[in-house]
Amino acid sequence: MSLIVQKYGGTSVGDADRIRNVANRIIATRKAGNDVVVVVSAMGDTTDDLIKLAYQVSEKPSERELDVLLSTGEIVASTLLAMSLKSLGCDAISLSGAQAGIQTDANHNKAKILNIEPSRIVSELKKGCVIIVAGFQGVTKESDVTTLGRGGSDTTAVALAAILGAKVCERYTDVEGIYTADPRAVPEATKLKEISYDEMLELATYGSKVMHPRAVELGQIYNIPILVASSFNDHPGTLIHGGPMEIRNKVTAITQDMDVAKITIVGVPDKPGIAASIFEPLAKACVSVDTIVQNASIKNITDLTFTVAKGDAEKALRVVNPIAAKIGARECLADTRLAKVSIIGCGMQNTPGYAATMFSTLYAAGVNIQLITTSEIRITVIIAEDKAKEAVRALHKAFELEKE
Amino acid sequence: MSLIVQKYGGTSVGDADRIRNVANRIIATRKAGNDVVVVVSAMGDTTDDLIKLAYQVSEKPSERELDVLLSTGEIVASTLLAMSLKSLGCDAISLSGAQAGIQTDANHNKAKILNIEPSRIVSELKKGCVIIVAGFQGVTKESDVTTLGRGGSDTTAVALAAILGAKVCERYTDVEGIYTADPRAVPEATKLKEISYDEMLELATYGSKVMHPRAVELGQIYNIPILVASSFNDHPGTLIHGGPMEIRNKVTAITQDMDVAKITIVGVPDKPGIAASIFEPLAKACVSVDTIVQNASIKNITDLTFTVAKGDAEKALRVVNPIAAKIGARECLADTRLAKVSIIGCGMQNTPGYAATMFSTLYAAGVNIQLITTSEIRITVIIAEDKAKEAVRALHKAFELEKE
Repeated sequence: MSLIVQKYGGTSVGDADRIRNVANRIIATRKAGNDVVVVVSAMGDTTDDLIKLAYQVSEKPSERELDVLLSTGEIVASTLLAMSLKSLGCDAISLSGAQAGIQTDANHNKAKILNIEPSRIVSELKKGCVIIVAGFQGVTKESDVTTLGRGGSDTTAVALAAILGAKVCERYTDVEGIYTADPRAVPEATKLKEISYDEMLELATYGSKVMHPRAVELGQIYNIPILVASSFNDHPGTLIHGGPMEIRNKVTAITQDMDVAKITIVGVPDKPGIAASIFEPLAKACVSVDTIVQNASIKNITDLTFTVAKGDAEKALRVVNPIAAKIGARECLADTRLAKVSIIGCGMQNTPGYAATMFSTLYAAGVNIQLITTSEIRITVIIAEDKAKEAVRALHKAFELEKE
Repeated sequence: MSLIVQKYGGTSVGDADRIRNVANRIIATRKAGNDVVVVVSAMGDTTDDLIKLAYQVSEKPSERELDVLLSTGEIVASTLLAMSLKSLGCDAISLSGAQAGIQTDANHNKAKILNIEPSRIVSELKKGCVIIVAGFQGVTKESDVTTLGRGGSDTTAVALAAILGAKVCERYTDVEGIYTADPRAVPEATKLKEISYDEMLELATYGSKVMHPRAVELGQIYNIPILVASSFNDHPGTLIHGGPMEIRNKVTAITQDMDVAKITIVGVPDKPGIAASIFEPLAKACVSVDTIVQNASIKNITDLTFTVAKGDAEKALRVVNPIAAKIGARECLADTRLAKVSIIGCGMQNTPGYAATMFSTLYAAGVNIQLITTSEIRITVIIAEDKAKEAVRALHKAFELEKE
């Protein structure tokens, strides 16, 4: 008998009918001859509602208490799913993160899993139970409840799949899979059958909101295939894995990220230590800097450009302005009406022509490129916000992604 | 420094404002120089809402899962109260039943506390924290969550007070104390300053809904004084304790219980084993029998009468009818329009005249007595339902309970 770990998102268990639907899917998986461990998120808007409650009693809720509070959302969903399974004749038991042996560090609200001690899960599996684990949570060695922060329940699922030696981690939400581009922006986008961990990580980092990169990284490290599919139908999803891809040397998908602001420090004297004097204070102010570009130096004077999230642009300027004055730069400029568009695909680096096709396509579409950055499997351009949708559609067509 | 255990009921923590109010009361208790351990119930209707959810996914929810589900209600309240205290500058920490060391048997939905291992509470108290314990819950030795059933949070509070050696257990709800009679039925009822454990147990058992007898019993065993008061004002409450009472040999309070049905088996042959043949099957059918009266035997034929809750009357008849036929009794009669009225007071037994005053008062009020039972500190009559209110008011006046 092989083991499958399934994770169901908050909309998938949003009410009693949907919980029953999930229970029936789990029963079908068992009938197909698998042991099943399930990870659930909190129902619908539960987490948001609990956060609201916390801010009603405290302007700055204690992080330790907030973790205990939020953890109840996943526990409620896990018990209801276990009840539903039992009422349908399938033996099941809910386990909290602590009971499932998920040990974390003590960084409340963003804890990291240190280890999983799966003896309870293993013994309940032996009894023939389906195990329902409350996602997004763990416990410190002092028995204090923690939550895992963003991407937490997905991370719980992949970590359990790794420790239990599952053959696959199936991740069900209201999204059917990974697409060649955001279907809301590009109606002709097609669903991918499979994608590599590396490509998925670039997708998640460069604008796709389908899955947080954290769980994908964990899947890559432990080589756990992750199936991304919908709990609302039986359409085939997308398998994220590391095996040999059927299609290499091809653009796999195109992402867009509208949350981009650009800061340019004009006329920076080009001498050692300047970059540190700018980016260290930004880090201390908790401004997360994304792309950094420094133009080639002309007469020992250079322009330094970096991008941040739009919400951080003002703060970044407040940090950078006095530094710019001190180091003798000419001025600081900010532009918050920008977007980031990336083409992503394994093996792009080794094959000429992708960058050329990208740039000429954008030129033909009348899109001006402000910045360019690349990785081994990605080319990103920063362009005007109001051109993003047009740019993505043009690139989708140029790289023939509408053909399955 | 002395330790006080406070328990706040569901309406006392029903919303953010009320939670802040409770936090301020706790801070005042600390400022008066006490260590404080607090036990909370779930907010307002939370428990009912969770039960509704459970029945939406299952006709007969798993008892184990139901316990985990319900336990989240108290945990949510405990974290919000801890957050509120911290935001008001008072160090506080919430603990689940498991974290507080409350070990129970594995009888889900009605677990009994076996032991409390208070090391975490003690160490957090030493750090200067107010401890907020989620009431109504514990944990088995297999680390499974249990709930304590009716009167659960009060029981948590008194048990903690006992194990920690608290000087008092203060129990706050929306009720100001224990009254000489139900103030809704008897407007001239007065609030008692104090009452003995024994009297309070009789009160709770014979109709007062203010407090479940379970926690009172525990208070009596460990000699923990219990203050019953309101969290919504600073009016003095009622102290339940075992010390010498100021006022002895006096009726303390009058209770009424409208949930009474009477079953009479007429013409029972009076021979050994008959009672067992009737009450054993009733126990097996989970019918809780209250008062049992057997009239003196005339010519070896007797009438056997017992009372049950109204909801159980039909079931009791279904059990008893075939037995009555088998043992040769004449018939079974049921009356569901009855009430129980009791006068309660320490030392009644030793002082003549109470029963006489009670019966003559009822006679003068035109109330017919159907059954009488007594304990050391109680006299109970069963009368017609529609006479109950009148009877209680007449007795309240006869025993001069309107005078404080």
